[in-house]
Amino acid sequence: MIKSRLLTPGPTPIPERVQQAMARPIVYHRGAEIAALVKEVSEGLRRVFPTEGDMLPFAASGTGVMEAAVVNLMRRGDRALVVRAGKFGERWGDVCAAFGVEVAGLDLAWGASVAPGQVAERLKADPSIRAVFATQSETSTGGLHDIEGIGRAMRGSEALLVVDAVSSLGAHPLPAEAWGVDCAITASQKGLMTPPGVGFVTLGRRGWEAVERSDLPKHYWGFRMTKAALEKGGSTPATPATTLLMGLREALAMIHEEGVENVWGRHARHASAFRAGVEAVGLRVFPERPSNALTAALLPDGLDARDLAGRMKSRHGIVVGEGLDRLAGRLIRLSNLGYMDDLDVVGTVCALEMTLREMGWTSRPGAGAEAAERVLTG
Amino acid sequence: MIKSRLLTPGPTPIPERVQQAMARPIVYHRGAEIAALVKEVSEGLRRVFPTEGDMLPFAASGTGVMEAAVVNLMRRGDRALVVRAGKFGERWGDVCAAFGVEVAGLDLAWGASVAPGQVAERLKADPSIRAVFATQSETSTGGLHDIEGIGRAMRGSEALLVVDAVSSLGAHPLPAEAWGVDCAITASQKGLMTPPGVGFVTLGRRGWEAVERSDLPKHYWGFRMTKAALEKGGSTPATPATTLLMGLREALAMIHEEGVENVWGRHARHASAFRAGVEAVGLRVFPERPSNALTAALLPDGLDARDLAGRMKSRHGIVVGEGLDRLAGRLIRLSNLGYMDDLDVVGTVCALEMTLREMGWTSRPGAGAEAAERVLTG
Repeated sequence: MIKSRLLTPGPTPIPERVQQAMARPIVYHRGAEIAALVKEVSEGLRRVFPTEGDMLPFAASGTGVMEAAVVNLMRRGDRALVVRAGKFGERWGDVCAAFGVEVAGLDLAWGASVAPGQVAERLKADPSIRAVFATQSETSTGGLHDIEGIGRAMRGSEALLVVDAVSSLGAHPLPAEAWGVDCAITASQKGLMTPPGVGFVTLGRRGWEAVERSDLPKHYWGFRMTKAALEKGGSTPATPATTLLMGLREALAMIHEEGVENVWGRHARHASAFRAGVEAVGLRVFPERPSNALTAALLPDGLDARDLAGRMKSRHGIVVGEGLDRLAGRLIRLSNLGYMDDLDVVGTVCALEMTLREMGWTSRPGAGAEAAERVLTG
Repeated sequence: MIKSRLLTPGPTPIPERVQQAMARPIVYHRGAEIAALVKEVSEGLRRVFPTEGDMLPFAASGTGVMEAAVVNLMRRGDRALVVRAGKFGERWGDVCAAFGVEVAGLDLAWGASVAPGQVAERLKADPSIRAVFATQSETSTGGLHDIEGIGRAMRGSEALLVVDAVSSLGAHPLPAEAWGVDCAITASQKGLMTPPGVGFVTLGRRGWEAVERSDLPKHYWGFRMTKAALEKGGSTPATPATTLLMGLREALAMIHEEGVENVWGRHARHASAFRAGVEAVGLRVFPERPSNALTAALLPDGLDARDLAGRMKSRHGIVVGEGLDRLAGRLIRLSNLGYMDDLDVVGTVCALEMTLREMGWTSRPGAGAEAAERVLTG
């Protein structure tokens, strides 16, 4: 028997409590119960960011709410500065371009993190930029972008700061008001420990002012329509993904029982243990400034990441993320997002070193475990 | 103890088998398993319409895939004929208008069904119409539109026929090629017996030709991008709602075990029993041509539908649909969509007659049950 263990940076394992919450009989989505559910989930989610902003739910995955942010905040022909250092940063640019928003790219090597000063320079050089689209945790490379620093560097600018927090929420704080974030998007299937299919947009005063000016076409994603429906007490204008919201309510209850600060601390500890373990077995942590959501490890020449991933799965039931696009075959990505404990991390490091030995990569058995354990017990 | 019974025309009750399928451990959405799942669900769904067309899944509810159809098929400034005889017909017009598509309304009284000749006349009088947007089962009124007749009336026209099959699929056939339907949309939470959050678009050759010409902005809804990703074997471009798709696979297995023709037959039988029961207790079936998905009953003066619905719920655990918008307070809507058997129908009719008596409406106890039973055993 080999148990199945999901170590991909989304979707992440679903707690039994969340599964049970989603298996309850379905209810009518226009009743008071669902309106109360949406309200409760929104409130719980605000405390995870934390933010005081409005919270708008959509039946959609992360790319859907990225599109929602673009079509509600921008005008046709507006210029947007897009921070691109991985696949998801690039996606902001793709969505902007699809709606006729001019993309000014702030392009870095994959795995690099933007220096806030670079954002400030670009804004100064080009006052026509209306918004900066950034990614907090770049899932394709494991890199973390300094949203606090970017927000500080943008102080005094009229440009909006819009942040993809799909894979960072729960792993890193994103205090929207304190950091000057005008709009952020997230989704259910990462740190929020719920299956994919629900996305959220949160936005504050400056975000709403942009919504008033926006002239891009929209219906399903309409923020004003959504807010009006929520305020009328009737949940969302289109049918909400009720069972996923019920799961998310339970997942948020778990997060708040543990305490949001403790959840951030757990992700930090586990990410440190992963990084130590990965380096002790002789691999290199890839990003220059790693996210606490995942650890991307670069394989040495002669070792193929697809081969490693295949062996981890068949021998230990562990599904890891592989490198995407230009990093295919060179990277493995280990997630500690969401429903993970110390043994999940140590066990994965042990499986990694055993598998590398099978592939002929010589490292002392137990070296990775030792390093990870030192972090976890230190 | 009062059991909970969902008689709303969506969401509909979820079979235990489907709930169990969704409660299995979550899997990585980029693996071969999910690509195979999407393929299997698409194939199973094609046989429910039936259609040979492409089947494109989206993490979204029905309104989302309505938007997907509009933004992929139309050009800015195109004229569209929109059949409006209820809330969901009106929604087609709202979505078109939001994207700069000119709406030519074919407006009927709520509850009426369009005569195919009216569509033919309008197309003849206005050759600039590029598409007809219609609703097969109008959930807000219980009315059925004759899609076969509309398709026949449109023969020879270059206008596309686009059909909302959200609440009709499973209750009525929609053989796309035979009836000349170029594009149809549906969603998981009605006849498909799965929680809300997954929508589908199916389209054929003429639909794809329109996609090639379309210039409306889109990213998340992009049909070409979605088809390309499916053909590469990597499921959908954005994260699919994996657990809902797993539930839907099980629900489709149940539909095909019963046989699609038998499922249509069951909906027809149950709808007939509901209509007979409703009339025997002295209410009036509202739509002129009723759908087999639901039965909308008009209450006589002096009886308030909200009061009736509240009593049905508190006394018998039955949640019925109420009248929407201009029909609020006047209509109740009883669904026989999806996971329903004879006793669900007869029990609901008994509850209806008991509740009406409590409200002072005199009908002979058992009259509704007798009428419904005669249909079911006839």
